[in-house]
Amino acid sequence: MANAVVSQSGGPTGVINASLVGVIEEAKKHPGIDKIYGAVHAVRGMVQEDFVDLTDADPAMLEIVAVSPSSALGSSRDKPDAEYCEKILAIFKKWDIRYFFYIGGNDSANTCKIINDMAIEIGYDLKAFHVPKTVDNDLRTTDHCPGYGTAAKFVACALMGDDLDNRALPGVKIDVIMGRDAGWLTAATALAIERPDDGPHLIYLPERPIKIEDMVAQVKEVYDRFGRCVIAVSESIRDTDGVGFSKKSKEDSEVDSHGNVQLSGSGALADFLAEKIKTGTGIGRVRADTFGYLQRSFAGLQSDTDVDEARRCGRQAVIYSKEHQSGSVAMKRVSNGADYSVDLFLTDLCNVAEHTKELLDEYINEAGNGVTDAFIEYVSPLAGKMPQTEYLGNLPKVTK
Amino acid sequence: MANAVVSQSGGPTGVINASLVGVIEEAKKHPGIDKIYGAVHAVRGMVQEDFVDLTDADPAMLEIVAVSPSSALGSSRDKPDAEYCEKILAIFKKWDIRYFFYIGGNDSANTCKIINDMAIEIGYDLKAFHVPKTVDNDLRTTDHCPGYGTAAKFVACALMGDDLDNRALPGVKIDVIMGRDAGWLTAATALAIERPDDGPHLIYLPERPIKIEDMVAQVKEVYDRFGRCVIAVSESIRDTDGVGFSKKSKEDSEVDSHGNVQLSGSGALADFLAEKIKTGTGIGRVRADTFGYLQRSFAGLQSDTDVDEARRCGRQAVIYSKEHQSGSVAMKRVSNGADYSVDLFLTDLCNVAEHTKELLDEYINEAGNGVTDAFIEYVSPLAGKMPQTEYLGNLPKVTK
Repeated sequence: MANAVVSQSGGPTGVINASLVGVIEEAKKHPGIDKIYGAVHAVRGMVQEDFVDLTDADPAMLEIVAVSPSSALGSSRDKPDAEYCEKILAIFKKWDIRYFFYIGGNDSANTCKIINDMAIEIGYDLKAFHVPKTVDNDLRTTDHCPGYGTAAKFVACALMGDDLDNRALPGVKIDVIMGRDAGWLTAATALAIERPDDGPHLIYLPERPIKIEDMVAQVKEVYDRFGRCVIAVSESIRDTDGVGFSKKSKEDSEVDSHGNVQLSGSGALADFLAEKIKTGTGIGRVRADTFGYLQRSFAGLQSDTDVDEARRCGRQAVIYSKEHQSGSVAMKRVSNGADYSVDLFLTDLCNVAEHTKELLDEYINEAGNGVTDAFIEYVSPLAGKMPQTEYLGNLPKVTK
Repeated sequence: MANAVVSQSGGPTGVINASLVGVIEEAKKHPGIDKIYGAVHAVRGMVQEDFVDLTDADPAMLEIVAVSPSSALGSSRDKPDAEYCEKILAIFKKWDIRYFFYIGGNDSANTCKIINDMAIEIGYDLKAFHVPKTVDNDLRTTDHCPGYGTAAKFVACALMGDDLDNRALPGVKIDVIMGRDAGWLTAATALAIERPDDGPHLIYLPERPIKIEDMVAQVKEVYDRFGRCVIAVSESIRDTDGVGFSKKSKEDSEVDSHGNVQLSGSGALADFLAEKIKTGTGIGRVRADTFGYLQRSFAGLQSDTDVDEARRCGRQAVIYSKEHQSGSVAMKRVSNGADYSVDLFLTDLCNVAEHTKELLDEYINEAGNGVTDAFIEYVSPLAGKMPQTEYLGNLPKVTK
């Protein structure tokens, strides 16, 4: 019998706590696990011995945790180096921690890998498992990532409402969506489309660099056709010269400790695009919103599929720890549509660590400003049941 | 037998369509009403004879309309003058429209009043009724306004998630909330507070002008106590000199190093406050979001109380038209808490037109940076059932 530690790292999601509860409930059944510790604020909590005891956590309380957004154990942006990881391993020894479950993105998979490699090197018997999470859906190997479906549902519900708002008071509306390197979440706004003339009419993705003049021309074309235009823009879209519009719109960008440019939380990109479109088209009513943190942490909105899968992935990490040394839990889609289901499988940590996965070519339309039917088939089951809406202004006009 | 026209004006809300459906379903039962026309894009649709026939609208389809955000008949920002209203009355005569149901805010009540006065003056028999809607909750006479409860629920769910996000990755978070002249919606973010140390820790309202230095000092005080601070700020907060911070932030951006005149920037106020707080406190992680149109048009999120009341108000306008000439439907709270209920009553259009209602003094705390228990009692039944969340990082630390 030894102890386990579970922790959450990186940006929060709407279902990262479902994975946490999955780990806890399965760890309680694990014959080799005595105490289940939660490390508060990820690796920082590990080096500071900031542990809470989750072994006898009230199951009813855990059910509320599972539907709470954000990271219930706190998070951290620390990117541990070798020295940092040595400290973590020393603490693990001190606390007799021999099971390590780390819920996070590709940076967290990498941390998990470094600690695992180091444990092997010094001959410390540690089981190290990564449970995937991101709203960006940019992890490799897995079909999709827990956290993505819920964020996809949020942005689609937002665009559905915003498109109806734009019908009511027509003009150009720009919505800037999260996605550090990949367009997966921005692409999911296409789920808002119920009718042929529904927005988002244009979707701009980092995978398809574009000249601002071309974007302006495309907006004008849609506006001339429908009398309005709703566009979804990834925060990380870039010019054909490779420079991000976000960078172009800012004098200086803040950088987090991973070297990632902080893109969210400011209206700079939205305002930059609004001004270019306004001056370039002469359209009077141009509005822009930046969705910000609401996309990843909004109480009371989850995709049922996503929350189920997140919990399964957490449980499965513990199950894998019985027979395997380390790895990352991944999903494989075995059937789609109404029969949608996934199988879980174990993949090496190195298959998830560091690198990211772009939105696939087959999911982007030929013009590079929208998605394909194949993408809608891919994303629909992940976001789960969407609301239905009606608009009456398109009914046939009565004449007298 | 004569015809009726129904229309929606001003900014959309999450339940303005429930009021529309209420008008339609009750008008179908009205013995004096033959055709029920919807004027598309409010007064503009009336002068352009842009009517759709809602008399035989499919009831199943109308149920979807009732849960759809935004204005299903479109909207308009036109403020009709006497000449404009004369045109409307000429169209009413041509179409034999003798019932006018107008769903909107105080400007719409005023339009309804002008048309009603003019009809009386020229001896045209018209029934003119206003059905209230706003997310701002700033209409006079009524206890509260359809549209407010749903927007309140949205901003509270947003702050609930955002506060948990801020626990996970601590720092200062600023959320800018809608509210043209009044702080009602910003105040509703207090519904996010479940635990004593939950945010929003500070709530800034237009009813309480504040010096930026005082705001910075208050943020620092909260940050020193909790290691983090979440603040909700009304878009219309103002300095003690009476000038709105939104205006000040635009002046600021005009003198930036680019020399570019910005649009009425979507994130300008948020970024302005973030900069002041960052430089004023020296805190490293300061983030800001501006919620934008999501607050008023988000698919799939409604307050049950709100949608019920909005529909009742629509129906009641038609019922009043049987025995009265004109007026606005208003609500009076007859009981609160678990027994919450309202009675509807008819008030003169002049009691709603033009002027707005500020957040009451008794709902603002003494320090002017939060709300009172009385406000929570006022707003809770309007937002309806809220999600529940849990955070584990506050559990007792284990020592070894």
